Amino acid sequence: MQGLMIGAPLLISDLIRHADRHHGDAEIVSKRVEVPTKDGSGAIHRYTYREAHARSRRLANALKKLGVGATDRIATLAWNGYRHFEIYYAVAGLGAVIHTINPRLFPDQVGYIANHAEDRIVFVDLSFLPLAEKVAPALKTVQHYVVMTDRAHMPQTSLPNALCFEDLIEGSDDRLVWPEFDEKTASCLCYTSGTTGNPKGVLYSHRSTILHAYAAALPDALNVSARDVVLPVVPMFHVNAWGLPYSCALVGAKLVFPGQHLDGRSLHELFEQEGVTMSAGVPTVWLGLLNYMKEHKLRFSSLKAVVIGGSACPPAMIRSFQDEHGVQVIHAWGMTEMSPLGTVSTLKGKHLGADKEAQYAVQNKQGRVLFGVDMKIVDSDGKELPNDGKAFGDLHVKGPWITTSYFKGEGGDPLRDGWFPTGDVATIDPDGYMQITDRSKDVIKSGGEWISSIDLENIAVAHPDIVEAAVIGIRHPKWDERPIVVAVKKPGAGITREELLKFYEGKIAKWWMPDDVAFVEQLPHTATGKLSKLALRGEFKDYRLPEST
Amino acid sequence: MQGLMIGAPLLISDLIRHADRHHGDAEIVSKRVEVPTKDGSGAIHRYTYREAHARSRRLANALKKLGVGATDRIATLAWNGYRHFEIYYAVAGLGAVIHTINPRLFPDQVGYIANHAEDRIVFVDLSFLPLAEKVAPALKTVQHYVVMTDRAHMPQTSLPNALCFEDLIEGSDDRLVWPEFDEKTASCLCYTSGTTGNPKGVLYSHRSTILHAYAAALPDALNVSARDVVLPVVPMFHVNAWGLPYSCALVGAKLVFPGQHLDGRSLHELFEQEGVTMSAGVPTVWLGLLNYMKEHKLRFSSLKAVVIGGSACPPAMIRSFQDEHGVQVIHAWGMTEMSPLGTVSTLKGKHLGADKEAQYAVQNKQGRVLFGVDMKIVDSDGKELPNDGKAFGDLHVKGPWITTSYFKGEGGDPLRDGWFPTGDVATIDPDGYMQITDRSKDVIKSGGEWISSIDLENIAVAHPDIVEAAVIGIRHPKWDERPIVVAVKKPGAGITREELLKFYEGKIAKWWMPDDVAFVEQLPHTATGKLSKLALRGEFKDYRLPEST
Repeated sequence: MQGLMIGAPLLISDLIRHADRHHGDAEIVSKRVEVPTKDGSGAIHRYTYREAHARSRRLANALKKLGVGATDRIATLAWNGYRHFEIYYAVAGLGAVIHTINPRLFPDQVGYIANHAEDRIVFVDLSFLPLAEKVAPALKTVQHYVVMTDRAHMPQTSLPNALCFEDLIEGSDDRLVWPEFDEKTASCLCYTSGTTGNPKGVLYSHRSTILHAYAAALPDALNVSARDVVLPVVPMFHVNAWGLPYSCALVGAKLVFPGQHLDGRSLHELFEQEGVTMSAGVPTVWLGLLNYMKEHKLRFSSLKAVVIGGSACPPAMIRSFQDEHGVQVIHAWGMTEMSPLGTVSTLKGKHLGADKEAQYAVQNKQGRVLFGVDMKIVDSDGKELPNDGKAFGDLHVKGPWITTSYFKGEGGDPLRDGWFPTGDVATIDPDGYMQITDRSKDVIKSGGEWISSIDLENIAVAHPDIVEAAVIGIRHPKWDERPIVVAVKKPGAGITREELLKFYEGKIAKWWMPDDVAFVEQLPHTATGKLSKLALRGEFKDYRLPEST
Repeated sequence: MQGLMIGAPLLISDLIRHADRHHGDAEIVSKRVEVPTKDGSGAIHRYTYREAHARSRRLANALKKLGVGATDRIATLAWNGYRHFEIYYAVAGLGAVIHTINPRLFPDQVGYIANHAEDRIVFVDLSFLPLAEKVAPALKTVQHYVVMTDRAHMPQTSLPNALCFEDLIEGSDDRLVWPEFDEKTASCLCYTSGTTGNPKGVLYSHRSTILHAYAAALPDALNVSARDVVLPVVPMFHVNAWGLPYSCALVGAKLVFPGQHLDGRSLHELFEQEGVTMSAGVPTVWLGLLNYMKEHKLRFSSLKAVVIGGSACPPAMIRSFQDEHGVQVIHAWGMTEMSPLGTVSTLKGKHLGADKEAQYAVQNKQGRVLFGVDMKIVDSDGKELPNDGKAFGDLHVKGPWITTSYFKGEGGDPLRDGWFPTGDVATIDPDGYMQITDRSKDVIKSGGEWISSIDLENIAVAHPDIVEAAVIGIRHPKWDERPIVVAVKKPGAGITREELLKFYEGKIAKWWMPDDVAFVEQLPHTATGKLSKLALRGEFKDYRLPEST
């Protein structure tokens, strides 16, 4: 027997319609990608959800005229901005699939995924035009390129069938009733930039997107309301800017899109100018912002919370935001395969009475799951390990916004007994807080036990003379592997090998002590800005440990 | 093309499993229904989500042994307490339907709905035993009665096939894997206590319950997190205590169930004892609590917010909570047919800078919709009226947790063009805040225009000498209808007809001025405590307006 409730499917078009009908005058503010006029005007674009909805409908009608139908893949090479937002809603609203390409990928990777996705149209921001022009000759399925600008800024381009975004909008009618279809229909395609092999596509649905948008807005997650002004620093080409363009429409929050300039000064100016209350991004971005602010003795006047994810947040960064700036840190963890939100390290009632250090210890972990995600740690036989905060295991997750397989079945069936293996090694404590201790492939196996490379890295970067550090395992005849620290000094800092090793004393078990320290000018990073231990292990493949060990 | 996300159905059993796995030691505290021992011990029952889940599984196994299968209706006559909570999860978890009967209904209504629902088992709290015994002979489908107590408190009873709750639990195993089934499966049945005709059943599904639980927990709604201690005063027999037993499990909030004593003293004691941060109930309950606190000069030490709904919250009550007690009022509106949450009157960003009076003006309204509910006002032809805060119209709603038809098709198809007509008359302002101006059947039609009976009532109760007031339309030869005020004075107050009418001057348009005032000892109420204008109109059917009008 079925319940007797209205059978409305969960569709992305409902989000923008809701924002229009019930938060019509809430603003969407964008730093333009176009060069502003000499007097500085035109640097900011400002409009409302109502206007964004009208322009999304016009864009959808234009796409229909170009022959776009259900399931067609429509790609973007774009920064966070209002036109990108309109493409999100126009494409998904029609039942087509928006494929956000990461423009930081190497050109041949961009070509590979555009061909693999069989993109029909590619939308390109002005600053990515050179990239698109370079890649275009290799793209086999693209019929049109749309340059995301107006007629006045439309450049000369070698792109075949290049159209101007504003021409499409102007020539198009805003009368459109969004079609209704199965909520499990694909809506969005994001490729993971794996450190090995070709990128694999994660295909979200309308249902997964809406459920994720509800959960992400909860008080225990990103805590977004109609009283917030949200600036997603995390790019819209990276797992849908962690779902913020959806969650913000769901609650009617003001959105601020930062465009291409994500340096400390640009961000701080925009935060202050627009009264930003919440922002979200990776640690690297926040490091730039905090350093800039320290240097210029600046304060935040409206910012209340920052979401930090993408890689583990250094404990010192949490303290800096909270103690020096009074800005709450929301430490979060997820993956492209998880839409992306998995865990958030917000406190429970039981922690409210605890002292500050105990609260920081909770916040340093990756956090506890939101309803909709379940997680467990398992041993090498797939047996669930206890949530005692001590046992390490491979972290597996499941839930309605988690990948069941990759686009076109690449890489085979990833699931194990219905759970998705994250590739992370983690502990889960009795309160349900998960802490990543390593990537499955980065964990250092010494004498049959595991050493967490991440724990050792966190200690190194807590030293005031160290900017960045990586810990990798080096082959050892007796112990199998032993850890070494590869570190970047602060400019002018004089720290020695011995001083850094001394800094570890008392902080770790003796057998975790790194066998050596190598200072380098810089560490290798992937296209998405993550430390590339694969590349680092390559650089150190002939490295020999000191004799003494 | 479908998205490639794990195909997990949204099931109520996931909520309790989530709370167990990730908030296992969060507490559920209940004021017992059993009489405490002489030393006062045993008045409070205290356990955790983990134990609640284990006992729910044991109960589910016991129900299976009694032959309960999918779609069977299992009724409760019970207060808010831990056993009621276990029944919620055990019954829905099995794919059966929990039918929460309102014990305040007249016995023949209880009999009518138990027969209409074809209940197989009825769970009965000790205090409702006399009611159950009275009704039992008329119940045609009930096979077992389960008295919600332990062996020590098990009373003599005339109920046929009476079982003891704790005997069922003790004799049962907690090993059970919750079955997986279609998320649209019926989970819960609540009858509306209409003022006319027989009650009609609203049948919720697992899907509607989960979506509602997400939305209800949002920062713009009831704002529930794992840091909250939630005391639902609103009964679990009344639209699932506004969904709190689900939303609290979803976020892992501590739950406090007040049992049967909802007077000011009992509530205040429990609030303080358990550190309650949020509570929810109807205005009548809060009036009792505020009066008790004023009389005894008491304060709240942990309470941060109260949700007020069920009927319009008097503006003076909002001020009293916020100005005198520093407790935020969350004014909400919904219906049994809406699971129940429709709108919540939380502020938007644009209101934060406004002065206090402007903020109160927003809070006095019923509020704006949560994502998942859409609403509109329509004229008598069904044409949508503008959201200008002035136009009155019939309020229609739709969304995935709103009724599409009543159980067994009673009353025919209620929808109009796919929208559910609420029976309320309302305005919607340009910011999306809805304000109920009347019930469709209570609005007073004078000279072709509409007069809001509720607006006139709010003014009357704002007078310090008036406890309660109702405004009804009286037939008038020229104007069709004219309003009169029927009011209850405060004990000892000496207010006159003329003084009350004078109090209206300057507050309303002249033609809205009531034609007369009648002071009465008390006003008639329905079984759920709402003012019964139907009964009042009956009492005043021969009333003659003063000559002058």
